Amino acid sequence: MAWRLVCPRCGFRGEEGRYYHRCPRCGSPLEFEGERPRYGRLLGEGSTPLVYRETPLGPIGFKLEYVNPTGSFKDRGTAYSLQLARDLGYRCVVEDSSGNAGISTAAYASFLGLEAVVAVPRTAAPSKKSIIASLGARVVELDSREEAAKYAEAMAGRCFYVAHSVSAAFLEGMTSAGREVPEGSAVVVPSASFSLFLGIWRGSGGKVRLYAVQGVQNATLRGLVEPIAVGSGSTSSLADGLVLPSAPRAQEAADAIRRSGGGLVLVSDKEIAEATRDLWSMGLMAEPTSASAYAALKLLREVGVDVGGFIAVLTGSGLKFYDLVSRIRTLT
Amino acid sequence: MAWRLVCPRCGFRGEEGRYYHRCPRCGSPLEFEGERPRYGRLLGEGSTPLVYRETPLGPIGFKLEYVNPTGSFKDRGTAYSLQLARDLGYRCVVEDSSGNAGISTAAYASFLGLEAVVAVPRTAAPSKKSIIASLGARVVELDSREEAAKYAEAMAGRCFYVAHSVSAAFLEGMTSAGREVPEGSAVVVPSASFSLFLGIWRGSGGKVRLYAVQGVQNATLRGLVEPIAVGSGSTSSLADGLVLPSAPRAQEAADAIRRSGGGLVLVSDKEIAEATRDLWSMGLMAEPTSASAYAALKLLREVGVDVGGFIAVLTGSGLKFYDLVSRIRTLT
Repeated sequence: MAWRLVCPRCGFRGEEGRYYHRCPRCGSPLEFEGERPRYGRLLGEGSTPLVYRETPLGPIGFKLEYVNPTGSFKDRGTAYSLQLARDLGYRCVVEDSSGNAGISTAAYASFLGLEAVVAVPRTAAPSKKSIIASLGARVVELDSREEAAKYAEAMAGRCFYVAHSVSAAFLEGMTSAGREVPEGSAVVVPSASFSLFLGIWRGSGGKVRLYAVQGVQNATLRGLVEPIAVGSGSTSSLADGLVLPSAPRAQEAADAIRRSGGGLVLVSDKEIAEATRDLWSMGLMAEPTSASAYAALKLLREVGVDVGGFIAVLTGSGLKFYDLVSRIRTLT
Repeated sequence: MAWRLVCPRCGFRGEEGRYYHRCPRCGSPLEFEGERPRYGRLLGEGSTPLVYRETPLGPIGFKLEYVNPTGSFKDRGTAYSLQLARDLGYRCVVEDSSGNAGISTAAYASFLGLEAVVAVPRTAAPSKKSIIASLGARVVELDSREEAAKYAEAMAGRCFYVAHSVSAAFLEGMTSAGREVPEGSAVVVPSASFSLFLGIWRGSGGKVRLYAVQGVQNATLRGLVEPIAVGSGSTSSLADGLVLPSAPRAQEAADAIRRSGGGLVLVSDKEIAEATRDLWSMGLMAEPTSASAYAALKLLREVGVDVGGFIAVLTGSGLKFYDLVSRIRTLT
C-alpha cells in the first residue's frame, strides 16, 4: 500500500499501510499521506436526496442524510472505515457512541462478517441500544460518554477503533457529502464530532459557506467562535447527537467556519422541539438532532440573516425515536 | 391531458384527464390509455441499493427498498399518486393502511402541502399509528381492515384515494422498481396488494422470474396458484404488511407468476421470526414483513430450488418496529 498516516501537529509519520485512529505520540488527528484507499458504495450509503421545499423561512434545501442504509450520515464514514478494517485483516471493530455511529458500525460490521463491540453511556436512548444489539453487536454500557470512549480506546489495536470524532479514515468517508452539495451553497450542519462538517468542507473543496449547530449545553466551539445566534433555553438534551465530551477537530472546524464566512448557532430544547414538529409536519421524518439544523435556520432568520436557499442537513432518521417524536408532538 | 383510465374488464372508458381509483362501473382495476403523466423523484424515492452478500444459501442480492424516504417501497407509488393528485387540483388525500402505505401517504401529503386522512384498523402497530400522526395526518381508527377500506372509499371523490391495492396510478409509480433489477433475475417479493410485485413485472418488461411470498394466514393467491413451499406454522401475524382483506390484482399476479416461471411461497411466524434475526445479524435492518422474503428463500432451498443469485426484496424498515425486532431477537 502506498499510503501512511502522518501527524500535522507533532510530525509523527506512521508505518506504510498501518492504521492508527489518532497520533500515537501526541493524540492529535492524523492525515493520509500518499494515495489513500478508494472504496465504492457498500450498502448503498451516500448519494442522498437533496430536496427543496417552500417553508415559512423561504425555499430551503433539505439534504436527507437519514435516507442512508442505517438511517444516518454516519454510514459514509463507517462504510469507508470498515472496508479499510477488513482489508487490513482486522476481525473485529469497536466504537463508542451514543447511538447513530454505534448502529452504523454494528450494521456494517455484520454485513462484512466482522465482530463489533459498541461502548455506550448508560444514558443512551434505549431504542438505539436495542437496535445495536439486534444488529448482532455486543453492547457494553458504561457510566458516561467519557468512560465509553476510554473503553473503546483500550480495545483499539486488537480491534479496529472507528473513532469517528478523530479518525482520518472516517473523515475520508465523510468527504462524499461535500461532493453532493452545489458549489457556493450555505449549509447548516448539526455538529458534535465535526466529521460531517469537515467532510463537507473538504469534499466541497472549501466552496461552501458553513454554519455549525451545537447544543447550548455542549458547545465545544464556544471560546473558539462567537455564536451568531443563541436559543432561548439553557438545556439541549433532546439532541443526543450533539453530545460529545471532546472534539479533537474543533479547532479545524472553527477555522473552516471563519474561512467559509459562515458561523455558529447554539440551540436549546425549546427550539429543537418546535423544529422537530415543523419538519415532521413537512413530511421530513428527522430525529431531533437533525431538527436542530432547522431550528438554527429560524434563529438565523431572527437575527436578520436571509436564509432563503440555505441547505439544512438532516443527519438522522426519527424512526429510531418515534416514541420521543410522538411525545414532542403532543407537548404544547 | 392526453390520458384517460379505461377498464379492461367491462370496457368502461373514463373522462379524459379524470382520476378514478377503480372502475366506477364494475369495481375492477383500471389501466391508463394514452400518454400517462411522467414524474421525477420528489423526496428521493426509488433508485434503491441492490447489494449482494454471501449467505448460508449462497450469494443473495438484497434490494433495499427500506432505503426510501419513509422507509418502504410504498414511496414509489405514493410519490407518483400524490403528484398526480396535486396536479389534478385535489387538496386532500385519503388512504387505508395497516402501516407503511399510511406513513408514506402522510409524509408525501405533508411535503406537498396536502391534507391527509389515514384509516387504520385498531390492531395496527402502535408505532406506525404514532408515526402517521406525527407526520400531521389525521388517523382514523376502525374495527377492521375492511372497515378502514370502506371509510376511505366513502371519502374518495372529495379527496384523492390512494388505494394502493387497485389504483392504476399507484402501480405506475411502482414500475420504477422493475427497471432497477437486472434482466433475467429471479426476484422474491413479499406480496399482499401486488403493487410491488406487478410493478416489478411491468417495469422489467416481464423479463424476470417472480416469486410471491404470502403469509399462511392471509394467502389471497391460494386457489389461484399452488404453493411451491409452505412454512411449518399456522399463523403469520408478525408480518403485518402481508395482511390485506382483498387483492383486486390477485388474478393478474397469478398470471405473472405462471408466465414468469416463478412460484408462490407461504411463510409462517416461525420462519419469519428466524429470518428477521438472520437479516439483522447480516446488518440488514428489515421489518418482519421484508424478512418473509428471506424466509421464502430458505423454504425454496429446502424443496430443492438453487437460490444462489436470487434477489430478495426487503420492502420496509425495521426501525418502525425496533421494539418488535428486539423481542423477536430474544425469543429462542
